[in-house]
Amino acid sequence: MLIVQKYGGTSVGSIERISKVADRVLRARRHGHEVVVTVSAMAGETDRLTGLAADVGGRDQKREVDVLLATGEQASAALMAMKINALGGQAVSFIAHQARVHTDSAFSRARIKQIDVSALRRALQHGQIPVVAGFQGMDPDGNITTLGRGGTDTTAVAMAASLSADVCEIYTDVKGVYTTDPRICPNARLIPRITYQEMLELASLGAKVLQIRSVEVASAYGVAVHVRSSFCEEEGTMVVSDDDASLEKVVVTGVSLDTNEARITVRGLPLRPGTQSDVFRPLGNRGVVVDMIVQNPPTEGRTNLSFTVPRDDLDAALEEIHPLIKTWDAESVVNDPAVAKVSIVGVGMRSHSGVAQRMFELLAREGVEILMISTSEIKVSCIVNNRYGELAVRVLHDGFNLAQQGREA
Amino acid sequence: MLIVQKYGGTSVGSIERISKVADRVLRARRHGHEVVVTVSAMAGETDRLTGLAADVGGRDQKREVDVLLATGEQASAALMAMKINALGGQAVSFIAHQARVHTDSAFSRARIKQIDVSALRRALQHGQIPVVAGFQGMDPDGNITTLGRGGTDTTAVAMAASLSADVCEIYTDVKGVYTTDPRICPNARLIPRITYQEMLELASLGAKVLQIRSVEVASAYGVAVHVRSSFCEEEGTMVVSDDDASLEKVVVTGVSLDTNEARITVRGLPLRPGTQSDVFRPLGNRGVVVDMIVQNPPTEGRTNLSFTVPRDDLDAALEEIHPLIKTWDAESVVNDPAVAKVSIVGVGMRSHSGVAQRMFELLAREGVEILMISTSEIKVSCIVNNRYGELAVRVLHDGFNLAQQGREA
Repeated sequence: MLIVQKYGGTSVGSIERISKVADRVLRARRHGHEVVVTVSAMAGETDRLTGLAADVGGRDQKREVDVLLATGEQASAALMAMKINALGGQAVSFIAHQARVHTDSAFSRARIKQIDVSALRRALQHGQIPVVAGFQGMDPDGNITTLGRGGTDTTAVAMAASLSADVCEIYTDVKGVYTTDPRICPNARLIPRITYQEMLELASLGAKVLQIRSVEVASAYGVAVHVRSSFCEEEGTMVVSDDDASLEKVVVTGVSLDTNEARITVRGLPLRPGTQSDVFRPLGNRGVVVDMIVQNPPTEGRTNLSFTVPRDDLDAALEEIHPLIKTWDAESVVNDPAVAKVSIVGVGMRSHSGVAQRMFELLAREGVEILMISTSEIKVSCIVNNRYGELAVRVLHDGFNLAQQGREA
Repeated sequence: MLIVQKYGGTSVGSIERISKVADRVLRARRHGHEVVVTVSAMAGETDRLTGLAADVGGRDQKREVDVLLATGEQASAALMAMKINALGGQAVSFIAHQARVHTDSAFSRARIKQIDVSALRRALQHGQIPVVAGFQGMDPDGNITTLGRGGTDTTAVAMAASLSADVCEIYTDVKGVYTTDPRICPNARLIPRITYQEMLELASLGAKVLQIRSVEVASAYGVAVHVRSSFCEEEGTMVVSDDDASLEKVVVTGVSLDTNEARITVRGLPLRPGTQSDVFRPLGNRGVVVDMIVQNPPTEGRTNLSFTVPRDDLDAALEEIHPLIKTWDAESVVNDPAVAKVSIVGVGMRSHSGVAQRMFELLAREGVEILMISTSEIKVSCIVNNRYGELAVRVLHDGFNLAQQGREA
């Protein structure tokens, strides 16, 4: 097999841990596999470098920030190659332009356009273990770029796609993807198989273990991704295509909680063509990302328009909106900085009716008031008072029997 | 003018110092000069990285050590570019492959073969200040290489040569090159002009402020090098060709002291063709660099052969030699781990006789016993007991009137 292994910052956070990782890499090699490794910066290093950039007043100079941050992954790739060699392996480090990771020019959040894997293949043919600095690329002008937080996941998946690897193993500090956050729900269960789509919808669970963009790439190229812990030998979660996952006939795969949102409602907003874009244009210009939007049918030509924004952006959003109330001829603006978004996700919903209704029932039974609702093909999200967020998760996790493997709701 | 400015590790050792350097760069720019900057790693960074390499057992893996160490200069280049930009300038960082610093493949001590300055020129034409990561290059296979300790000096001089710069300014933490070490001789004087040859011979003085190899490159391409302090505005030392320096008619330019040598004498060594190479071959194989060699004319076919080696290599050298005494049919081997090499250097010696004799007289008058002598065209070196090293320096500095500018001995 050809295996791409990705090790995150915690997995390479100390000399001792680098040593353990090198050992694991060599074990895979001894089992006869070809291995390509990609690593993040040592835990804390990216923050240290970001601090230095801020100290020289360079935080907004995205080109130079990328040059600076890229050193973190370069250093861990070199150290990892050294350790593998010291243990008797044959490793060689590659930084972005050597591994030919071609990206666009969007510094700090570049997208991989293509990886020319000829150099990596040559190393593999020589029996070597390429250790690629993750998170970074090279734009068409030869500038260094970085892929954004968690970008090494995308490096790994994109390499696996380009090399037609058999599997892309994402080693992290948790055992895999759980049915919900185990800190909230002690009987949360590790999900053995999950679809790309579910993984994307489970953002608040998934983002902690896997950069969302890497899932998009995996989905587009059909890369089998194995999310697992670098601290133990157990299997983790396989992220696969719909077809491969369908063996397990569950309706709801996981429950996620996002406590980082705030709600804004514009009351008594007169409806006419263009009303909504009038409201959201100033927010977009300010850089505020709006998540959920709910609009009731109008009464006497007026409606209440509610939406959520990241809590940190609430003040900025209100600053934009307050002066416009009169222009819009709306009645008022109210906000709630303390809301939580609880979601159930599962590809099984597509073929099962009544799942949303079941969710509302379960929440109602516990007296949890639902403030906003939004649905997609494989997800139902409810905004509730922040106080009830964790309760809602537990209620739904139990109500949909997620602690029992493979059991239908 | 087109100026290449090099800033060493101490000059970029903190955010505050980076700030001062950025200020100085911008001042040169405001005076209408084109400026190319090259920087070392922040003071202490290279040692930190070397420590990490040792921790993973990778110290001898030169390819990977170079990948690791190169991050130090990459980080300071990015930070310096940021600071210049933050102060209103227009800087852009270049790492080795971007600045196209082509070297051979001798990892950890690579030599620059060629710099393709087209990218740097383009940046200059756009009014930008290129900030080049020093100390590093790229070999023909695209591997990262480094140029050895002090290599950023060579980066600077090679860039100045390739760009036909008007001057290469080497900013360091001392004011320039002194007639001798001011800590030994308080009335040591800053040398305003010195020739490349003198600079090369003054290794023990010069190596502290300027990597020897950079002087060779400067000499080969006629680059005017200005060694000066980054902490003050005063002019330092201009290192120039023989013709340009000859205005100042001094015979002895400086006195240097090297206390890092040990002496070995093989006594009663039978002389025949090949004797010397028999002695030095095992040392060469062991990697011991022999500095001074003195051989007396033979008595009854036997001679005493004395030589000096770096003190750290004394044990290794003796290990090689002791077993061979019998093979050589020599009488014995003695060593002195505590010797010092005192040298006087000056291009004026070429046209003045009696300079060496004057040196011997001055030392004799103070009762300093001379153990070995070696001379070159512009240098006389004496090995003395380590105890008398600093005394010898003071005696010679005074005796040749080095404290008085431009005064002949």
